[in-house]
Amino acid sequence: MIEAYLAGLQLSDVPELDAAMHYALAGGKRIRARLCMAAARAGGADPQLALPAAGAIELVQAFSLVHDDLPALDDDSIRRGRPTSHVAYGEAVAILSGDGLLNAAFRLVAGCDLPAPTRLAVVGELSDGIAGMIDGQYLDVAAAAPGDMAGLRDLHRLKTGALISASVACGLHVAGLTGEALAPYRAFAAELGLLFQIVDDLLDEGDDGAASYVSAVGAERARALAGESRTRALELLAAAPGDTVELAGLTELIAGRSG
Amino acid sequence: MIEAYLAGLQLSDVPELDAAMHYALAGGKRIRARLCMAAARAGGADPQLALPAAGAIELVQAFSLVHDDLPALDDDSIRRGRPTSHVAYGEAVAILSGDGLLNAAFRLVAGCDLPAPTRLAVVGELSDGIAGMIDGQYLDVAAAAPGDMAGLRDLHRLKTGALISASVACGLHVAGLTGEALAPYRAFAAELGLLFQIVDDLLDEGDDGAASYVSAVGAERARALAGESRTRALELLAAAPGDTVELAGLTELIAGRSG
Repeated sequence: MIEAYLAGLQLSDVPELDAAMHYALAGGKRIRARLCMAAARAGGADPQLALPAAGAIELVQAFSLVHDDLPALDDDSIRRGRPTSHVAYGEAVAILSGDGLLNAAFRLVAGCDLPAPTRLAVVGELSDGIAGMIDGQYLDVAAAAPGDMAGLRDLHRLKTGALISASVACGLHVAGLTGEALAPYRAFAAELGLLFQIVDDLLDEGDDGAASYVSAVGAERARALAGESRTRALELLAAAPGDTVELAGLTELIAGRSG
Repeated sequence: MIEAYLAGLQLSDVPELDAAMHYALAGGKRIRARLCMAAARAGGADPQLALPAAGAIELVQAFSLVHDDLPALDDDSIRRGRPTSHVAYGEAVAILSGDGLLNAAFRLVAGCDLPAPTRLAVVGELSDGIAGMIDGQYLDVAAAAPGDMAGLRDLHRLKTGALISASVACGLHVAGLTGEALAPYRAFAAELGLLFQIVDDLLDEGDDGAASYVSAVGAERARALAGESRTRALELLAAAPGDTVELAGLTELIAGRSG
């Protein structure tokens, strides 16, 4: 459902740039979109209503990957099994594609059919999440984060957790939840972001020397931390109201993913 | 007023990134912010109400300059009389600063005190303008735009005109104008964007071989085109209702600027 929705989006009036943006958008596992739609269900809404918000989150995720992969940042040449955007299209187009994807996320939400207060809440939630994500990427790049566990947790709360948390919150906004009603889900989402990053680090074992749980505490301890994080996330989710079966399933998927 | 407002914005929770973003934001002539506030006055509002929208437009303008100046794009080393962001902070931080400035624009508007429909209209208007700006920059970089006058007009309508037009429209949104009431001002703003770009090209004479009015038709003819464009812009403005004295003054400022 989300794939068809994303494929159908017009991202630029210039066909060549639109193609480059869709290239960057293709091929993800859409975990954030699925979290958003599952959160909408947990909040009591039809998950399909969350499609624009879920789509926007995938646009943001694609933006962050395109820019993080650039030579000046992580300098990655393969992403999602294909050449990264700057390898396929050149650096200039990759920079502009990323900018365009970030902007398209806000444009999509601002122009969708959701009630005005919901659209505004989603724009606010997204922009908060993106700010955290960029802060985290800055700390990673500038190597300003301390290498100890507290520092890693801060860094990853920002870099990965911010958008994971925003994915869940946006789905709940679509269901009309605001303020304190979001609190138990936010606690769950923060833990889920941590879990996601520890598993990521385990999958990337042997990768370059970026700050990671594996390089900080070793693979065995990192696996134990992931198990504890999974348990805490499921406990926090159990304390939240609503139909959280899908969110629990996605938590297990994240804990058990192998690539 | 706008300078104090911009200087007071917290743009990132990470002080070093906040400083890099403020570095990129400093030193502009704030023509877009002044257009936004003058348009709010023309629409009958207190111009101070337009400060968040005007500030957001300057954040967008700073984002676009930081990314356009990058080595992969225009590769400029001096901007507003100082080293460009990537020279001062390195490419990685410049890319992240630009991303952060773009996001901060939406975050500022989403979180400000304006009525919800106004905030949403400004977010939509900004994202439309930014999409046009990025399309134009893509055409410029990809050299996909034809070098004739019609092609140049298309390119500049996108690259410069889109944000100039959005500046005016955002001010009118702040004043509560919507739909057809915006039309005469949109016609004026489109012409103003064209005027701005022709004058820019005349000031950049002798610059590298990017598509420009001067390289296409020569300096003398470009000066004549600027004069015609100024006249048309003032005529279009005279046909719009409201107190347009400040907008007329800014039009003269743009037509006559020398740097």
